[in-house]
This record gives sequence, C-alpha cells and structure tokens, in this order.
Amino acid sequence: MPDRETALETHLDRTRDARYESYFAFLRIPSISALPEHAADCRRTASWLADALTSIGIEHAEVSETGGHPVVYADWLHAPEAPTVLVYGHYDVQPVDPLDLWTSPPFDPVIDGDRLLARGAADDKGQIHAHLMAAQAILETRGRFPVNLKFLFEGEEESGSVNLTRWLEANKDRLAADVVVVSDTGFFEGNRPAITTGLRGLMYAQIDVTGHDVDLHSGGFGGTVENPANALAQIIAALKGPDGRIRIPGFYDDVVPLSKNDRAEFASLPFDEGAFLDHLGLPSLVGEVGYTTLERRGGRPSLDVNGIWSGFTGAGAKTIIPAHAHAKISCRLVAAQEPHRIFEQLNGYVDEIAPPGVRTTVTFLGGGQPSLTSRELPATRAAARAIEATFGVAPVYMRDGGSIPVTASFASVLGLPVVLLGFVQPDCNAHAPNEWIDLHNYETGIRTFARMWDELADVRT
Amino acid sequence: MPDRETALETHLDRTRDARYESYFAFLRIPSISALPEHAADCRRTASWLADALTSIGIEHAEVSETGGHPVVYADWLHAPEAPTVLVYGHYDVQPVDPLDLWTSPPFDPVIDGDRLLARGAADDKGQIHAHLMAAQAILETRGRFPVNLKFLFEGEEESGSVNLTRWLEANKDRLAADVVVVSDTGFFEGNRPAITTGLRGLMYAQIDVTGHDVDLHSGGFGGTVENPANALAQIIAALKGPDGRIRIPGFYDDVVPLSKNDRAEFASLPFDEGAFLDHLGLPSLVGEVGYTTLERRGGRPSLDVNGIWSGFTGAGAKTIIPAHAHAKISCRLVAAQEPHRIFEQLNGYVDEIAPPGVRTTVTFLGGGQPSLTSRELPATRAAARAIEATFGVAPVYMRDGGSIPVTASFASVLGLPVVLLGFVQPDCNAHAPNEWIDLHNYETGIRTFARMWDELADVRT
Repeated sequence: MPDRETALETHLDRTRDARYESYFAFLRIPSISALPEHAADCRRTASWLADALTSIGIEHAEVSETGGHPVVYADWLHAPEAPTVLVYGHYDVQPVDPLDLWTSPPFDPVIDGDRLLARGAADDKGQIHAHLMAAQAILETRGRFPVNLKFLFEGEEESGSVNLTRWLEANKDRLAADVVVVSDTGFFEGNRPAITTGLRGLMYAQIDVTGHDVDLHSGGFGGTVENPANALAQIIAALKGPDGRIRIPGFYDDVVPLSKNDRAEFASLPFDEGAFLDHLGLPSLVGEVGYTTLERRGGRPSLDVNGIWSGFTGAGAKTIIPAHAHAKISCRLVAAQEPHRIFEQLNGYVDEIAPPGVRTTVTFLGGGQPSLTSRELPATRAAARAIEATFGVAPVYMRDGGSIPVTASFASVLGLPVVLLGFVQPDCNAHAPNEWIDLHNYETGIRTFARMWDELADVRT
Repeated sequence: MPDRETALETHLDRTRDARYESYFAFLRIPSISALPEHAADCRRTASWLADALTSIGIEHAEVSETGGHPVVYADWLHAPEAPTVLVYGHYDVQPVDPLDLWTSPPFDPVIDGDRLLARGAADDKGQIHAHLMAAQAILETRGRFPVNLKFLFEGEEESGSVNLTRWLEANKDRLAADVVVVSDTGFFEGNRPAITTGLRGLMYAQIDVTGHDVDLHSGGFGGTVENPANALAQIIAALKGPDGRIRIPGFYDDVVPLSKNDRAEFASLPFDEGAFLDHLGLPSLVGEVGYTTLERRGGRPSLDVNGIWSGFTGAGAKTIIPAHAHAKISCRLVAAQEPHRIFEQLNGYVDEIAPPGVRTTVTFLGGGQPSLTSRELPATRAAARAIEATFGVAPVYMRDGGSIPVTASFASVLGLPVVLLGFVQPDCNAHAPNEWIDLHNYETGIRTFARMWDELADVRT
C-alpha cells in the first residue's frame, strides 16, 4: 500500500468516533425541503455544512440565497496545473410519512449491525458526508488536493431543484470547472458497484376535480351528478393502456428509441429478476409491453400516481358524494422528452377526457430534464478506476430510473461533462420509511472519493 | 278552529322558549355513530331521550342494548279501542368533517333568521324532537292520545343500522302495532310538502389495493411495478360505463323496471331541473342514459366513491409509488336488489378486473334493503290529510334517493306497513357542513304529527 493510502487509513481509523458524531449531527437536522414548516431546518443544515467545510480547510464557504432553500458553495483552488472539479450533492431530504412505519425516529440515527438507519442516511446526506470526510482526510494527511475542488450542495433536489438552474446561471463564472462529479446515485442490484450513465427526467403535476362546493348526500344526489372522485379515477385510468403504454397524445414523440446496442447493454447487466421480485414481495412485475424490466426502469418513461385523496377516509361509512378530488401524478422522462412539453400534453389530454359535470384543472409542480452520458468520458473512466481500486471490483454501467434534475443543467448551463459517482445500495429505502446506508459502502465510498481526485489529477477531460 | 287545536296552539305558544332550550340541548350532544370516540356521546343522547320521554308522560322508557349504540324504547298504551302506532326516528348523526367549512361549530346550534343550524338539526334529531313536542302538547292539553303510541329511536342509522334488525327480532312482541310511522324523510324540491313512497337500499364496501410493504421510489421502480393507486383508479373507472350504467355483471338482474305509470308519476312532479342545477352550481347533471333526473334519483340504482386515499397528500411533491390505496364505495339500490348479493357481485367483478402485480380485497361495510309503499295505504292517506291540514297544501308523492335501512326490516321482521312522514327541506345539507332546518317546517311539523294521531284514530290499517 502506498504511503499516502496508509496515512489515509491511519487517519480514518483514528478519527472514526468523531466521523460518526459528525455524520449523526448532520442527519439529525430534519431538512425536508418539500414542507414549508422545515424551511428553517434547511437553512440550519446549510449553515452546518458551511461550518463543516470551513473547519476541514475548504475555503470561501458561503450559504448563498436562491430564492428558496439556500445552496452551500466552497472551494479549494491551489492546484494551478491540475483540473478543476465541481462536486455536487444535496442536503435536503424527502418527507418521512408514513411515520408509523419507521422502526426508529427518522431523525434520530441508529446503527444496527452494518446499517445506519435515518432519513437522508443514503439520499443524499451520507454521500455529502463521505465527501467531507474524504476531503478532511486528504488535507490532514497530505496538506493539499491533487485537483482544484469546488463544492456545491443544494437544498431543493427533493422538491425539483426549482431555483438551482437560475442560481447556476447567475454564478457561471465562479463555477468554471473541467468536470462535474454528482454524488447522488447508487450501486446496482445486489450492491454491485456501478456507475450510472443515464438518469430519467421528471414532470410532476396535480389534478384537481371539483363538483358541488360541499359534499352531497349520496342518496339524495347519487345518480344525478358526476362524482369528482369517480371522475378523477376515470381520468387516471385513461392515462395508461392495458399494454402499459402512456396514452397522452404525443407523449412518446421525443423519446429516443433504444438502439440494438442499448438493449444489449441492458441485457448484459447481472440482473436477477426473480430476486428483485422476491425482495418486493409482489405477485408480478408490470410495465410497458415489449421491454425488459431494466429497460422499463432506465430506458423508457413511466407514469405514476404519487398520492390521491377525496371525501371520507375515516373508519366506518359516510355516504357522501365528495365536493372535490385530487391526485399528484408524475412522469419519469427519458431523452429527449421535455418536462414542460409533457405537462402541456397532459393538460390538454385531461381537458379532453375529463367527464362532463365537474370542473378539472391540472397544475405543474416541477420537473427536470433527463440525461445520458458516455462511459467513454475520461472522467467516467477515472471514476471506474477509483471504484475498482477501493471496492475491489470493476463497476457495471447502468441507466438509473431516478432523476437528478440538475445533471442536465450542468451540461446545458455550464457546458460541463458530468460523472455520476455514488455508492448507496439500491434497496436503501430512499423516499420510504426506514432509509438506511450500508456502512461498508459509506466507509469505502470515502476512500473512493479520495482516490477519485488522484485519478482525475492527470486527466484532461 | 276546534277547541283542541286552539289549546294546542296556546300550549305551543306558551312553551316556545322551553322547546328551543330542549331542542338545543339535544343537538349539543355529538352523537356521531360512525366514530368510535363518540360511543359515549351516543349513549348519553339515548339517556337524554329516555328522560325526555318520561318527563312528558310517555311510559316504560328504556335505553335498550343492541350490541352497538343502544335504542330508546317507550310507549303509551291507554287507548284500547284505537290502533297502535310505532314511531321511528334516529338520534345519531353523520360525521362533521370537513369541519373548516362550517360557518359555526356543528354542535353549537345557532338560529339565523328562519334557520336553525347544527349537525342533526334536520337529520334526524329535529324530527324526533318534533315528535316529543307534539306528544307533550297533546298530553298537556288533552291528557291522552287518540291512539296507542310506541316510540323507537335508533342510534345507528347513519352507520347502516347494523344491529337493529336483530334487536327488532328479539323484541317482536313488545313492538306489536298496526302501522309504523318513520320520520326521517323530507319534502320535495322547493320545500314542497311531500310524502315519500320509495327509498333506495344501500350497499357500502371498501376496496383495498396493496403493493410493496412500504412506499417505493418512483424513479427506481416506476415502470417496473404496478402502482396501487393507478390500479385502484382502473378498478373504479371500470365500475361504470360512459353511459352511466354500472358494469358489475348481474347488477341490474333484480331491478324492477320502471313501469309506464311509474314514469308518469315521476314526470308529474313539479321539478325545476334548471333551478336544481343552478343551486348545485355544476356544469351539468350526469347519470344513466335513458332516464330523467328524478328517475335516476328515486327509481334507479347508483354507484359512488365516498372516499379515496393513497400515498402523499401534503403540499409540494413526493416521488413515490404508494404502498397501498383505498376507496370507500357505495351503491344505492332499488327494489328488489339485495345488498349482500350486490356485494358478492362487486367482489367477484373487482377480482376479475383487478390489474396484476398488486393484491386487492373488497370488504362489506354495511347495507340495507330498498323499500316501496303504496300511496293508497290507509295510513298514507291519513298522513296526506295531516300534512294538508297543517301545511295548507296537499302533498306530492315521491321516491327518495336516500336509504333508511330499517324501513324494509319493519316490513320483513314485524310484518307492518310503513308510512314515511317527515318534513325537512331537501337542501338541508344532511351529511354535509352547515346542516340546517327551516323553523317553519319544524314548528308546522309538530302540528302535523299531533294531527296525524287524530287522523289515524279511526283508520283500520
């Protein structure tokens, strides 16, 4: 083992208790970006991060306003001959409901064997924290980085990064770099080390159906008026066909079809469909006909109801025709679908299919572009070497079904190539109760990030 | 005016303040039968009623156990030559949510002009209270009733009268009578005095769709698994066709078709469809093709979602595939549909149409038989005379869309004819926020009930 690696290991061994104390403190702040009542917590998390960056020797740490939850920026720019890397992560987390399904409070981290359980443990505070720890270890053991580093940590990723693109545009100059490393992805099924080369985009909307201004007695009015909840169900049912295809006219117009080569790459992944299904405990997998499960997840768009509510939801029976009904609906998009265009198509289609007798509106709640990168990118190859050197196995390449809206913005606003370098296990319950991180991944991830800067030092991206 | 009417008016004039004090006290007890946390309130209401009956001179008042909320029974049996009348009403009320739409607290009655506003003011405490006040006025002014009276006040009508049929069977002997007067109905549109000759039945069920045991990330899983909320929407959408007909196989098998005469009766009612629609503020009326609005309400079955819930329903966006989705669904039934048979048909149909990839169950939550009575029944003719004598206009005859499950039980268990004699205005917001009663209807209703006993005294039903 080279000296610098031995020094790194010694440092990480020695600082283990402090590392977990810091990680826990970071996780304890409930930075739920979607809920207005947690705005102050998001701001507190940003301050915590700026202080943490400064304390490990990163300079110019700043909590910068975006119009929403702030971003945190900091840099270290003392390697004039070396490339400059912009590191991205997000400090905000998903809401925690249903709270009663958590085995421990979501913002009170606990370690259970190899797992650390908390909201944000994986998505994405764990990966930000690994960056902090890698940076601290390098500066403490070597006094300098082999590359220039700019850190950008966002607070609105879980609510659509609604203000970030504007902030990127306003801060183009200080974000100048050679490559972006986005650390908000994970490994393949079975915790197999992987590099993500594709992300889906997102279009998030709400459908509201209104009838009479108060609930009606279902006896006195049943059969004479449209029921907003029945009407909403009709609308939702018409969004997809029995073949799993989305029926919104024009929806597939901009989809880049999967090439023979794309499909071969999906097919080559070590995917155990039986294990995937067993883990989920479902009767069967379901989706667009003509595509494999991995293709449907990474290479094809999807449409899901994220929430629906109307009328009486208590115990027992209440015989009403609800005054109104609501659904949150989102689509995952693939290249080259555009979220606003998809929203307009949805809006037009709902208008066309909405049953008479009620009033229907569709509201855009957010979106993000899909992105696709090449595995031949020099920085991606550097990431592959860093993963192999630390996790002991070459990564597979995969397209992920999730969305990191800012990824496309880094390309379009800053003109930068993006490498997706993350290490959480795919069954981490991101966005669900009992989110967890595998501590082996977290610990090794710290070494991967440290190694990445060495691998990038000589790369001309 | 005959002496006995003058005496009645004098008494009612003199006791006006006490009458409203008593009415308000009755309304203040939140006897919501559907919510377990109000079980003690239901029991308290029953005791209040038993005390009230006793205090006005009705005998043998008893709060009698049913296994659920108790019934109240009392009688006055000192007219050996005259018929015996069983009077039915219910002291339980509907839930009050959404509470924020009430202009004043639902259990804090207020008088606003000609209206008294409170949960239960109309449905059905107001009509029970009018019976109490009519009985008190007769006993105070004449010392005796012209008929024998048995009062039966139920506490579970708004939750399907689940225990009452069994209680009727166990108490057949003491319920022996010549006719039942059910006071839980109202007038026709425009507050036109009316007698209800038909009631629809009810079948109430819950559909539960379950997927993975916790919410899934809609990026990591969207397009690969069935979404329980989408699946539920599909199921609901398949329950009715675009022609407004219910698609459950066999659903219409037992429906007695409307005869030419039935349709002529519906057509003869003074119904202003434009005013009905204007009052509702909807774009249009909607329902089964081939039938008029009144036919669809009173003479044809219907199906409505009463409530639906799944996933994320907070502000903003949460990108999940919900773990489960639920809907409360009910059907209004017409003769000779049978609730349990309809439930079995629904259950079988949902089983058939449920999408693969999720698990679906359907649970029966309650039901009641439809009922139809003839306007030529001697007791119905007596009721018509009582209405005309007090409201000053002959009633129209109508079939109501609502359900009073016990009506069919009185016929099937006790073998008794039933007269539906009630007087609340049709736009009283029963089952909705801001329930109200027209105080002219309440006051005149007291006179109607008093007159009814005189009209029935000589009738051989």
